[in-house]
Amino acid sequence: MLFLAGSKPLLHFRPPSKRIPSWKPAGNGPQHMKGSTLLRKNYIYAPGPVSVPPQVLAATAKPIIHHRSADFDPLFKKVSEGLKYIFQTKNPVVTFASSGTGAMEAAIVSTASPGDHVISLESGKFGERWGELSQAYGFDVDRVQFEWGYGPDPNKVAELLKARPDTKAVYIELCETSTGTVSDVKAVAEITRNTDTLLIVDAVSGLCADELRSDEWGVDLVGTGSQKGVMLPPGLGFVSVSAKAQEAIKKSKCPKFYFSLAKALKELEKNTTPFTPAVNLIFGLEVALDMIQAEGIENVWARHARLAEGSRQAMKAINCTLFSKAPANTVTTVNVPDDVDGSKIVKTLKEMGVIIAGGQGHLKGKIFRFATLGYYNEFDVITIVDAVEQALAKLGHKFDRGAGVNAAQKYFAG
Amino acid sequence: MLFLAGSKPLLHFRPPSKRIPSWKPAGNGPQHMKGSTLLRKNYIYAPGPVSVPPQVLAATAKPIIHHRSADFDPLFKKVSEGLKYIFQTKNPVVTFASSGTGAMEAAIVSTASPGDHVISLESGKFGERWGELSQAYGFDVDRVQFEWGYGPDPNKVAELLKARPDTKAVYIELCETSTGTVSDVKAVAEITRNTDTLLIVDAVSGLCADELRSDEWGVDLVGTGSQKGVMLPPGLGFVSVSAKAQEAIKKSKCPKFYFSLAKALKELEKNTTPFTPAVNLIFGLEVALDMIQAEGIENVWARHARLAEGSRQAMKAINCTLFSKAPANTVTTVNVPDDVDGSKIVKTLKEMGVIIAGGQGHLKGKIFRFATLGYYNEFDVITIVDAVEQALAKLGHKFDRGAGVNAAQKYFAG
Repeated sequence: MLFLAGSKPLLHFRPPSKRIPSWKPAGNGPQHMKGSTLLRKNYIYAPGPVSVPPQVLAATAKPIIHHRSADFDPLFKKVSEGLKYIFQTKNPVVTFASSGTGAMEAAIVSTASPGDHVISLESGKFGERWGELSQAYGFDVDRVQFEWGYGPDPNKVAELLKARPDTKAVYIELCETSTGTVSDVKAVAEITRNTDTLLIVDAVSGLCADELRSDEWGVDLVGTGSQKGVMLPPGLGFVSVSAKAQEAIKKSKCPKFYFSLAKALKELEKNTTPFTPAVNLIFGLEVALDMIQAEGIENVWARHARLAEGSRQAMKAINCTLFSKAPANTVTTVNVPDDVDGSKIVKTLKEMGVIIAGGQGHLKGKIFRFATLGYYNEFDVITIVDAVEQALAKLGHKFDRGAGVNAAQKYFAG
Repeated sequence: MLFLAGSKPLLHFRPPSKRIPSWKPAGNGPQHMKGSTLLRKNYIYAPGPVSVPPQVLAATAKPIIHHRSADFDPLFKKVSEGLKYIFQTKNPVVTFASSGTGAMEAAIVSTASPGDHVISLESGKFGERWGELSQAYGFDVDRVQFEWGYGPDPNKVAELLKARPDTKAVYIELCETSTGTVSDVKAVAEITRNTDTLLIVDAVSGLCADELRSDEWGVDLVGTGSQKGVMLPPGLGFVSVSAKAQEAIKKSKCPKFYFSLAKALKELEKNTTPFTPAVNLIFGLEVALDMIQAEGIENVWARHARLAEGSRQAMKAINCTLFSKAPANTVTTVNVPDDVDGSKIVKTLKEMGVIIAGGQGHLKGKIFRFATLGYYNEFDVITIVDAVEQALAKLGHKFDRGAGVNAAQKYFAG
């Protein structure tokens, strides 16, 4: 029927048959749960990839422009400035067509030479990656292990650097994604900033979620990827480069080509890239950076802190304990309760359309992890807490149903 | 006014004023040319990036899925099979989040070791790139120069390999984009295929446009990027890897991490990637590969051959000569006529909304290049030929206006 405001129905259409036709969906019908019908929607709470704002996705689908033209250069100049803001630095930030690992490889191989002494601070799966990478490139790497769930001890770093003042670089995670632990980057930067040693921060998952003040703290290189706090699909890697790092780059003898920061910095001065950039992701980046700048980076950090604290309080209220001793705002890491089969949590949530992450390495089946990273708000926390409650209830965990959601509500109302 | 089929207008709205309001566009209004009004539309005829089909762009804007989940693996399996088809190989094809240069770096650094003797066949800007890359990684590289506009001479390759049977690999372009020249890859593969020497083909611009039968000819590694014949935005790199290349990969001592083919091949067996893939571009890749498979790769090659031949005949008909002695179907390379200022052609076309490329290196200002690469048909040739006619006429070139378009029409009608 067709209505105009204030009028009566204008026309009545007679349906072709008196019976409403039955309809069989071609694919899977709605998902049934506990006697109710749940319309299947997909929810991503992985610590990357994250849910991408629809306006960002739409921007990535704009018609291509030529990257070697005056159409591209002002766009690239704008996003390169915007990146400085989210890295909290006046230093150049270069963009690669790569994942975050590629960006970190660029930071590491562009600043050291084979045989150089470097220190890799490792307390989880991603910290280990930079130790492996250093070995692949023939660095004299001291892979310093810390217990998983703890951040690296700054005193230990001070001690190591005192013993080896020739250390070329220290590698640290902002957030170790595998354990949901934030490192005290500020304290470690205090130790390195007035020495010849570079501090290279893996902020792949942490940037925008956990506070990072690159220049104020004296961090030299920060790497990240697009599919985390920057709220884009994966495919871009970013690295900020301090003046001290730029000096080190001149001396680096490590073989490299695509991931050469020297090449990238040189082209960045001309508002372009040495190799073809992933232009459509950069269209999206412009929109995402506009959103972050409109909110303000300190407000973005505060929002992530609030969402993470609400999540943590909710988990405690349903008889769960937190894995990390220094919990990050990037991702909330929860110990699997004793009364639950840990191998089933991720799968149970997946069946509801909710993606979270399990444990990696020796933590497999022992923890579960969910992130409210990027384009997430308080409603999203309520949703994931309800979903976790449903899954744990289904798997036989003993807790007051609703206590998690109530704890988050109470915290957010406070 | 509101109409229903077969009815009279239901309501008459009185316009607020009897005068049609005037309207000033916020940005640039329509572009005026020669007394007529040209609605500005953008046309890309660069040899990459290329115009992306709207259905591919739309697919890239789909909501993100987690790449470490059962949602991704079947998609990645499907596109990895589809890639084999366009590479004409039964060998695995790996996908990187990178540009085509990244894919070529992976092919080169994964198969040789520092000190290895390799031969780089160079007759243009992109051939030079692999020579430079080999030097960056410490290979004993013989950078063999051929005159620009000619493909590498297979007899010379045979001679060089006879003198150095220990040669680890030969690098060749399928299409040297800077000169629009196709190499005789088949003839060179005849020489390498029954030896221990690998043949590595840079098909970044050429794939899908110039015939390449990887397995039938005996090519070992082929690299390409997404923003060319594959009809995607930039951001993905692909490499096919023969059994002989897989053996070489096991012995390679070249330092690498992100661009390790060994890592990529291992994960490909599990239908995934070692590092976060550029998932949304892979959504688009699925659609693009479906399109290529529906057309058939031989038909795709034939279409490119037809469009390139139509373009060449059109250029000759307007008193232009072709630069390349072995013209590729990827890109048409035209000598700037003597009566025209070569530095103005690209700019003049750009003002009409038409992007083509100029010359690189010592060919700057001496040639212009336009590609009908990927999602292009005969109408697109007519359009670019008319655009080139307009630009050359404006710049004072003497020719029969319309002769270029007529020549293309005649060829396509034949």
